[in-house]
This record gives sequence, C-alpha cells and structure tokens, in this order.
Amino acid sequence: MEVQIAVAKINKYATSESGDTLEIVERPNGGLSVVLADGQTSGRGAKAISLMVVRKVIGLLAEGVRDGAAARAASDTLFTERQGRVISTLNIASVDLHSRTIVLTRNNPAPMFICLDDRIDIIDEESIPLGTSRNVRPVITEIAIQPGLTVVIFTDGIPHAGERRGNPMNISQVIHSLMEDQDPGPQALADSLLEHAVRLDENRPADDISVLVLKVALRDGDNVRRLSVRLPIEGRLWT
Amino acid sequence: MEVQIAVAKINKYATSESGDTLEIVERPNGGLSVVLADGQTSGRGAKAISLMVVRKVIGLLAEGVRDGAAARAASDTLFTERQGRVISTLNIASVDLHSRTIVLTRNNPAPMFICLDDRIDIIDEESIPLGTSRNVRPVITEIAIQPGLTVVIFTDGIPHAGERRGNPMNISQVIHSLMEDQDPGPQALADSLLEHAVRLDENRPADDISVLVLKVALRDGDNVRRLSVRLPIEGRLWT
Repeated sequence: MEVQIAVAKINKYATSESGDTLEIVERPNGGLSVVLADGQTSGRGAKAISLMVVRKVIGLLAEGVRDGAAARAASDTLFTERQGRVISTLNIASVDLHSRTIVLTRNNPAPMFICLDDRIDIIDEESIPLGTSRNVRPVITEIAIQPGLTVVIFTDGIPHAGERRGNPMNISQVIHSLMEDQDPGPQALADSLLEHAVRLDENRPADDISVLVLKVALRDGDNVRRLSVRLPIEGRLWT
Repeated sequence: MEVQIAVAKINKYATSESGDTLEIVERPNGGLSVVLADGQTSGRGAKAISLMVVRKVIGLLAEGVRDGAAARAASDTLFTERQGRVISTLNIASVDLHSRTIVLTRNNPAPMFICLDDRIDIIDEESIPLGTSRNVRPVITEIAIQPGLTVVIFTDGIPHAGERRGNPMNISQVIHSLMEDQDPGPQALADSLLEHAVRLDENRPADDISVLVLKVALRDGDNVRRLSVRLPIEGRLWT
C-alpha cells in the first residue's frame, strides 16, 4: 500500500500572509502527521496564532504525545494566553504505522469527508475550535489503513466561498462528482475543490483556503518515500 | 517564479528505520526551510539522533533564528549530550522571501551541486558534521532566487553507493547527464539520482539514501501552494 497526501493552499485575495498554517511531522513510533490550523481573522495576527498552534501540536507529536492530548494542550495554551478572545481551528491527519490506522483529530466546525469505495460519509459532528474555553475536546475518528480510503479536510474558506455573493458551494455534491471520476489522484482532488471555491469567489478568494486530501492506494512498486512542494513567489513578498 | 522542491528517500536494505530525517518548516518572515539530518550508523539509534537534530533546528528556525545559528546550536546540544561520541550531518535549504535568496547551510562532508543555466558547480569546501567538537561551524552559501537555478543535496548514501562492490558513482557525471535533459523536473532529478545509487547497490541499498532537489522555475500561472507526500507502507512497519 501507499499513503498519498496532497495539499492545495491559497491566500485571501490581496493578503500577503495566510492565516492557515500546515506542517508535517514524522511520528516517533512510525508514520507521519499533517497538522492544519486556521487562526481567527486573517493577515499577520491570524498567522501568528495558527503558527503557534501548529508548532505546539507538532512539538508534542514529535515527543510521542497522542493526537488528542496534543490538541487539548494547544487549546489550553491558547486559552491561557488569550482568555478566549482569540481562537483557532485545528485538524490533524495522522498515518499511525504503530496502530496501522489513520487518526483524524478535528476541532473545526467545518465538516470533513471520508470516502471508502463507493460510500462517502460526511463527518459533521459538532466540533469547536481551540481556545474557546477550558476543556475543549477534539472529535477523533480512527480508520484502518486500507486501499480505497480517501479523506478530504479543509479550512472554512471552502464553506465560506461564494457566500457573500449568495452562491455558496454544495460541498457534498462537488466531492461526489469529483469522486465519480476514475480513481482521482489526491492532488487533482485538492486542486479541483480549491479551484471550485476560488471560482465562486470570482477569482478573489474571500478567505484563506486550504484543502488536504489523504488517500490510501495500492502500491505502485518501489519503497521510495517522496515529497514535493511548489511555492509560487509573487513580485511582492508572499507567505 | 515558483520554487519547486522534491525529495526521494529510501532506507538501507532490510532496515525498518531510516537514520535520515527530513522535515519542512515555514519561516516566520516568509518562505520555508527544508532540514535534512543523517545520524551516525543506522537503525533506531541513528533515527533518534537525526530526529533530535532536525527538531532542534526546526524549533529555532520557527522562532526566527538564522540558519547558521540554528546549525551551531544543534551541534552544541549534540556535543554536550554525547561528548563527540555521536555525530550527525545536517543540510538546510531555505527559501528566504525576506532576503529573496536561497540559503544553503551545510555540515556534511558530502558535496552539493548548484546548477545555473548551463553551469554546474560542485560545492565541496571542507565541512564537518554536527557534534564533533565545540565550535563546529556550518558552510553557508547564499544565492539570489532566480529562474534556472537547481540545487542538488544528498546524504552519504549517494557517495557510498556501489563502494562495497568497487563500483562507486561518478556523481558529477550523473548530474551532468541528468541536467542535459530538456529542463528536468525536480522530482525526476531526485528519483533518477536515487535510482542510480540503488542500482549500484544491486537493489539492496547499503545505507539510508535521501536526495533533495530545489529548483526555481518560471511561474506556471496560479497562486496556489502545493505539497504532496507519498509514503509506501510495507507489510511490516516501515519508518
């Protein structure tokens, strides 16, 4: 088998810093975790918050702390520092080679989608962002690593796309139609969902948007781990 | 412009853990850094060392510490803990959007290659690993971000490939021949160099091998940041 992860990420229109931060860390007992946070508001303040949350979570995961405990710790730290005045969403997608499961940790009102064979489940159990109060608990979903599994996670730039123009996205319908294609790759899925959102905002995204797709595929032959990054650079600074 | 980064990474034959660790971090003043460490020996002990070095460097870079200072700090920490008995190589490749340069930090006897237009420079100034003594200093190379730039970095699995069979790689020749192709993509470059090394070891790599390629290309249209990861999963655990 092979786990394939793809991310597509764009800034709010005319904003030089994204309030969304995404990083990947190796798990000390095998596998890796992708950590995605979206800090309240946009621009530099939001970036500082989401960076803080991601760094806190990554540091704890690297020490072997479990995903749920890392999310709670980040929430407590944020609440202690900001007393509920600043919040952040958090999603963690972990490939845990010890338990041989995908562990999905969610502190985000935005839903996520789990596709297995022809079935598409929407995970929209109530979930509140980090830093809102003491004792914030994450919603955790654990699934065996198996070929045919696809998980789609995003920040609120996706559900908010087109809203101001009274034309929001039917996310479930878009994901169903994308999954109908013959075995779509994770990058194609992430790119298409992002593109759809940007189009609804008439090419001027009203918010930072990040889409993360994790897919388990049958092996394609070699034992090589691969990672690739594409970072567009504007004439002006762009982070 | 667009900065494209690709990594290909394989374990020593019949080893379940790689002594090489690679992670990526966002720079707080814009851009990102790729940090690659190779801990002495192989297996679990080497993994612990390279993970420690990478975590130390990433934590400091995330706080805005400069690359050279982060490398020195990691070396001092390793030397303090192990008194020179355990060492680790380190390479940092940073896309610094503040200075608009690529900053290459090297504590690794293995050379690196910088290709610009038709010219290929080998950077092989003496460079010693972290943790060997007090006052280890990194070799730092800084180049303006410009289209046509390609940087190739690797761990010692590349220069050691084929050595035991008396058939080492002529790395410079292989890179020249790969660069002669029409504008090779970074993933193709990294994959080809790794494949060449694995072939010299008759498909049983004698060491962990990691290849990192960074390329600056002309823009291809959108403002979307992309990241993708492929993680093969063996029947048995594999990290």
